Amino acid sequence: MKPLKVALLGCGVVGSQVVRLLGEQAADLAARVGAPLELAGVAVRRMGKKRDTDVDPALLTTDAEGLVTRDDVDIVVEVIGGIEPARSLILAAMAKGKSVVTANKALLAEDGATIHAAAKAGGADLYFEASVAGAIPLLRPLRESLNGDHVRRVLGIVNGTTNYILDKMDAEGSSFTDALEEAQALGYAEADPTADVEGFDAAAKAAILAGLAYHSRVTAADVHREGITEISATDVASAKAMGYVIKLLAICARSDDGRSIGVRVHPAMIPRSHPLAGVREAYNAVFVEAESAGELMFYGKGAGGAPTASAVLGDIVAVARNRLAGTRGPDESTYADLPVHPMGDTLTRYHVALDVADKPGVLARVAELFATQDVSIQTVRQEGHGDDAQLVLVTHRASDAALSGTIESLRRLDIVRAVAGVMRVEGDDNL
Amino acid sequence: MKPLKVALLGCGVVGSQVVRLLGEQAADLAARVGAPLELAGVAVRRMGKKRDTDVDPALLTTDAEGLVTRDDVDIVVEVIGGIEPARSLILAAMAKGKSVVTANKALLAEDGATIHAAAKAGGADLYFEASVAGAIPLLRPLRESLNGDHVRRVLGIVNGTTNYILDKMDAEGSSFTDALEEAQALGYAEADPTADVEGFDAAAKAAILAGLAYHSRVTAADVHREGITEISATDVASAKAMGYVIKLLAICARSDDGRSIGVRVHPAMIPRSHPLAGVREAYNAVFVEAESAGELMFYGKGAGGAPTASAVLGDIVAVARNRLAGTRGPDESTYADLPVHPMGDTLTRYHVALDVADKPGVLARVAELFATQDVSIQTVRQEGHGDDAQLVLVTHRASDAALSGTIESLRRLDIVRAVAGVMRVEGDDNL
Repeated sequence: MKPLKVALLGCGVVGSQVVRLLGEQAADLAARVGAPLELAGVAVRRMGKKRDTDVDPALLTTDAEGLVTRDDVDIVVEVIGGIEPARSLILAAMAKGKSVVTANKALLAEDGATIHAAAKAGGADLYFEASVAGAIPLLRPLRESLNGDHVRRVLGIVNGTTNYILDKMDAEGSSFTDALEEAQALGYAEADPTADVEGFDAAAKAAILAGLAYHSRVTAADVHREGITEISATDVASAKAMGYVIKLLAICARSDDGRSIGVRVHPAMIPRSHPLAGVREAYNAVFVEAESAGELMFYGKGAGGAPTASAVLGDIVAVARNRLAGTRGPDESTYADLPVHPMGDTLTRYHVALDVADKPGVLARVAELFATQDVSIQTVRQEGHGDDAQLVLVTHRASDAALSGTIESLRRLDIVRAVAGVMRVEGDDNL
Repeated sequence: MKPLKVALLGCGVVGSQVVRLLGEQAADLAARVGAPLELAGVAVRRMGKKRDTDVDPALLTTDAEGLVTRDDVDIVVEVIGGIEPARSLILAAMAKGKSVVTANKALLAEDGATIHAAAKAGGADLYFEASVAGAIPLLRPLRESLNGDHVRRVLGIVNGTTNYILDKMDAEGSSFTDALEEAQALGYAEADPTADVEGFDAAAKAAILAGLAYHSRVTAADVHREGITEISATDVASAKAMGYVIKLLAICARSDDGRSIGVRVHPAMIPRSHPLAGVREAYNAVFVEAESAGELMFYGKGAGGAPTASAVLGDIVAVARNRLAGTRGPDESTYADLPVHPMGDTLTRYHVALDVADKPGVLARVAELFATQDVSIQTVRQEGHGDDAQLVLVTHRASDAALSGTIESLRRLDIVRAVAGVMRVEGDDNL
C-alpha cells in the first residue's frame, strides 16, 4: 500500500514526541490505518536546535510554506501554536486539500470559523482533539458520542498549571506566589505564566468546548475570564474549612430557557464530594451534564509532550483512514447558532465573607440589603466576635449582575468593615 | 431531504427511551444528521404490553424478521439483548446492508466475530457504544482517540449493580445479602441477580474492551471470572481499616513482554486514593493506562433507560451520517491477534489475613513458605495476640498460580488456624 505522507509543523515538546511515536509505532500505525504513515518533512524555525528526539536532519526544513503545499504531502500536523504563521500554513494546506491535525486552541478559539470554512472549501479534514485537555478523549465524545443528547453544562478543569498551583495551596497552605514558583521550577508553569494564571488558556478551551457542546460559534472574546492571581492562602483555607476546594473552572452552560449560552472561566468553590474536587496536581478533568446521559466525567493529563502527542496520533490515524476511504470527518456544526449571553445575565451563586461590627442588628441589615437586590440567602453563619466578627453567607442562584451589585452595596454599608472574601460556588446545585 | 428510517427491536427500558428521544429531539437530530430520522417500526414480543412511553400503535409489530428486512429500513437498532433472536435479526439486517446499532454485550462477547464479519460482508455499519458502560463514551475513545497509542491496562467498574452493593457494604457495613436486597428494592438488581453478582455481565464487557484495546479477538469464555457473593462485611471492614475499598473490577492488561493479554473480572482491594475508589453507588468508571496518554478515566452512568439510550442515539446519528456520506465506520480491528493467557500466568498481588498460633517462630515459618513458592512479601503486620493473633500480609506481584498455590499450602500449615481472608490488590503498583 502506498504510504500516506505526513508534514509536521513544529518540533518542540509535542512535535518531537510525534516524530518519535511515528517511528516507534510504525508497524501498529500501518496496521490500524491500512497503509504506512511516512514523515515527509518537519518545519522548524532554527535548523541547528537541540531536540528531545532524533529527527533525520534531511527531513528538517525552515520552509514551512513549501512543505505544507508539497504535492506528495497528505496530512499536515500543526503543533507550532499561536495565531501566525500557524493560520496561514493551515489555510495553505487546506487549499491544497491536505488533511489537517492541530493542537492549536488559540487559533481555533480566535478564528475557528475561517479554519473550519477553509476545511470545507478544500474538502479537507480538520481534527483537533489535542487542542483541549491534551490526552483526554473529549472532543470526539462531545462531537460524536453525545450527538444524540443535549448537553446541559460542561464544568472543566482544563488548565494543568493553575490546577497544580491551587492544589498546592490547598494541600500545603502555600501562598499563590510560592505555589507558582514551585510550578515554574517543575516546568508546569512558564517563565511568563500570564496565559495560564490569568485564564487565557482555559478561556480558549472553553470557547472550543462550548462551540462543540452547543452547536454554535463561540470565540475566546465571548468568554468571561477571571484568573487566580488574587486567590489568597486565606481564601483557600476558609474554603477548606467549609468542605470546599477552589478550582479554576471553565464553564459552559445553557440558559434555563435554552435560548442562549454562558461561557466563563473563573475560580470557584466546589464541594469536596464533587468528582472534580479530587482532581489533583496538573491533571485535567471535564465534567459533562447531559439530559439523557446524566453526569459524565473525563479525566487525564491535559498537557505534556507524550500525552498531547497521543491525541495528535489518534487524529492522524483518523484522518489517514478517512483519506483512504475517500471520506471526511464531521464538519463544524453551528446550526443551533445560540448567542453567548453576558456574564451579568449568568445565574451563579456567591460565597461572601464580611468583616462586620459586632453589634445587634448587623445580620438584619445585611439580610435586608441582599433582599433589596433580589438575592436570596441560602446559609449564613456568624463567626468570632468583637473586632473579629465575621458573617459568612452563601447565596442561592441569582444573576451575576445582581450578586456583584450586592457586593458593591455591601462595601458601602457602614457596619461592614471589609468584604473579606467573595467567591462563586459551583457543583452544589442540590442545596 | 429524504428521511432515514429506523427499525427498533425491543421496546423495554432502553427501547422506550429511544422512541421518546427520537420524537422529542427530532429537529436537533435532523440538523445533526443532515436528514430527518423516522421510526419505521418497533418489534415487540407482545403487542398489548404497557410501555414507559407512548408508541404509535401502528408502528408496533411482532414480526421482527419482516421489519429488519423491509426495503425502506436504513438503520436497525437492537435493544432486545441476549443471543437469540437478536443474532439472527442482526445478521438478517446486515445481509440487506442495513446499518446496525446494538447495546448487546452478551452477543458481542460470545459471537462478535460472526457479527463483525457479517457487517463487513454486507457493507453494513456496526456500532455498539451502549454495550459497555451505558452512557459513558468509552468505545469510541478506545477505538478512535487512542488509536495512535498503546493501551497498557484497562481497569473498570463496569457493573453498576455490584458497585452499588459493594458501596453499601463499605459505607454502611451491610452484609452482602442486605445490600443485595436493598439493590433489588431500588431496581438496581434483578430478581435473579446471578448475571451481575457472579460477574457474567462484567465479563462480557471485559471481553469487548480487551478486543478493542488490544486489536485482538476476545470472547467471554476467555475471561477469568469471580463474583462478589463470597465477600463478607468483615472483608470490607478490614479493607477499610487498611485504607482500601473493595470493587468488582474488569481488568484487561498486556503481559510484560507484550505477547499476550490477561482478561479477568474479580473483586479486588484498591487504595482509597485511586480515582476508581471514589466511584459510588451504581456509577461506572473505566481507568485506562496508555503508554503515551498516561492515566485516563471515564466516569458516568453505566445503565438505565435514558443513559443507555443516549449512547444508542449517538450511534444512530453516526451511522446515519455515514449512510448519507456513503461511508462506513471502522471495521473490527484484530490485526494484533494476541492470545489470552490463563489466569494462573497473570501477575497479581494478594492481601492475605491468617489466623495463627501466637508463638515465637510463626512469622518465620509463614515467610519461609512464601519464599519456597517464589512469592515475595511486601508488608506484614502482626495483630492481636493469643487466640486472636492474626498475620496480615500483602505480597509483591507474582503469578496468580504461585499465589493461589501459596494459599493452599498455608491452609495445610499447622500453625495457621485459618486463612481468614484472601483478596487481590490492584491500583497500587508503585508500592
